[in-house]
Amino acid sequence: MAVQKGDLLYAGKAKSVFRTEKEGIYLVEFRDDITAFDGGKKDVLVQKGSLNARVSAFLFGHLEEHGISSHFIGMVDERSMLVRSLAMIPLEVIIRNVAAGSMVRNYPIAEGTPLNPPVLVMDYKDDSRHDPMLNDDLILALKILNATELARVREMALSINRVLVRFFDSLEITLVDFKIEFGKLDDQILLGDEISMDSMRLWDRRTGESLDKDVYRFSKGDVVAVYRRVAEKICQE
Amino acid sequence: MAVQKGDLLYAGKAKSVFRTEKEGIYLVEFRDDITAFDGGKKDVLVQKGSLNARVSAFLFGHLEEHGISSHFIGMVDERSMLVRSLAMIPLEVIIRNVAAGSMVRNYPIAEGTPLNPPVLVMDYKDDSRHDPMLNDDLILALKILNATELARVREMALSINRVLVRFFDSLEITLVDFKIEFGKLDDQILLGDEISMDSMRLWDRRTGESLDKDVYRFSKGDVVAVYRRVAEKICQE
Repeated sequence: MAVQKGDLLYAGKAKSVFRTEKEGIYLVEFRDDITAFDGGKKDVLVQKGSLNARVSAFLFGHLEEHGISSHFIGMVDERSMLVRSLAMIPLEVIIRNVAAGSMVRNYPIAEGTPLNPPVLVMDYKDDSRHDPMLNDDLILALKILNATELARVREMALSINRVLVRFFDSLEITLVDFKIEFGKLDDQILLGDEISMDSMRLWDRRTGESLDKDVYRFSKGDVVAVYRRVAEKICQE
Repeated sequence: MAVQKGDLLYAGKAKSVFRTEKEGIYLVEFRDDITAFDGGKKDVLVQKGSLNARVSAFLFGHLEEHGISSHFIGMVDERSMLVRSLAMIPLEVIIRNVAAGSMVRNYPIAEGTPLNPPVLVMDYKDDSRHDPMLNDDLILALKILNATELARVREMALSINRVLVRFFDSLEITLVDFKIEFGKLDDQILLGDEISMDSMRLWDRRTGESLDKDVYRFSKGDVVAVYRRVAEKICQE
C-alpha cells in the first residue's frame, strides 16, 4: 500500500506515529531509541527499530492467522508499518507465564517460578505517574473500561498468550512475560502498539540466556546482535 | 475475663500482641505510638492507644450485632483487648467510598469523588516491601488465598463497609475509606486487627474536617483532641 507520511502525531519513547493521507490509517515508525528503568537509561542502537518492526509485523500476522485482530495493516519500509488508528486504552496489560522482573522484585516469589494459570497485571499507562498498577475495581471506578470491555481485554490477552506461548515453544524459547496494549475501533477492541524484543521477556530454553531488552537493561551483551538473532529465528519459522 | 498477660509475641507499629495463659487467646495492647508515611513520621501521643482500643472494641461489637465475626472477645483494661488468635492473612484490605489519599495521588481522580460501587484494593502486608499492591491473579499465584477464600474476603469486606457506612452516616460522618485485616481460625475467616481512627479516613459531613490520622499526617491540629471527640461520638451512639 503506497501512502504519504504526514504530520507527526505522537512520539513515544521508541516509536513515532504519523498521519497519512488516508483517513483512519497511521504510519508507525520504530526508532532506534531504547530506554529502560522508567527512562533512567537511554541509548540509540542502530538497527534496533527495524528488528522490532519486523518481529512485531510477523507476530501480528501470526496472531491474525489465529483469529486475533490487531491494528496492523502492512509494512511500508523496514522500520515503518501502516496501522488502523485506534482510540488507545491507557492500560499496559502484562501477561506473565514465569515469575521474573518486577514480580520478583515486589513479591515473595523466586525468579523462574512457573505461573499456571498465567498472571495478568494491568498498569495505568502514564509516564508522569510511573504507570501505577490497577485492579479491576480501579479500572471500573476510573472509567478506563466498563465491565464488558474489561472481560474482553482479559480474554484477548489470555488468547494472545496461548498463541504466542505455543509459537515460542516451537522455537525452544520461553515466553516469560510480555506487555501489550489495546485500542478501540468503533465498538471493537483490537490489539495495538507492538510485540517485540522491547516488550517481551524471552529466555532461551536450553541456556536460560536473555533474548530481549534485559540484555540492554542489565548490560548482558551486544543488544543488537541478540535482537537480530531472535528476529531471524522468529521470522524464519 | 481475667487472664494473665504472657510473653510478647509480636510488636507492630502501634500495637503489641501478648500470649495469655489460655490457649488460642491473645492480648492486644494498643500503644500510644503513631507512625505515618511508611514509618517516616513517628510520635508518641498520650491516650491515643486507649481511644483507638475503645473505638475498635465498639465497632467489633457493632459488627458482631450485624452478623460479622471478628477476633474480638472483650476488653481487659482501657488499652488492652482479648482476641482469638488467628493465622493472619498478609493482606491490607482497603475499602474506598470516596476518592482520597493514595488513590488521588496515584490516579487521575479528584479528591472527594464518590465511588459507587466502593473500590476494594488489596496490598501485600510487608513493611520491608512497602506493602505493594496486589490483584486477584497475584493473590492466587502467590498462594496468599485460594479463589473461595478470596471471594469470601471480598464479600466480608463489602458487608463490613455497608454496616459501617450506615453507622457513620447516622453520626453525620463520611466513612471515606478504611483498612482491615483478616485471619483464619480453622476454616473460618474472621476480621482481625483493629478498626480505629488510625485505620479509617473519616470526614465531618458538614465541615469536611478530618477526624482521623490525617490530622497527624498533615499536622492539621491536636490529634488526641480530635480522636477523643470522635471516640465519644462513636461510642455514645
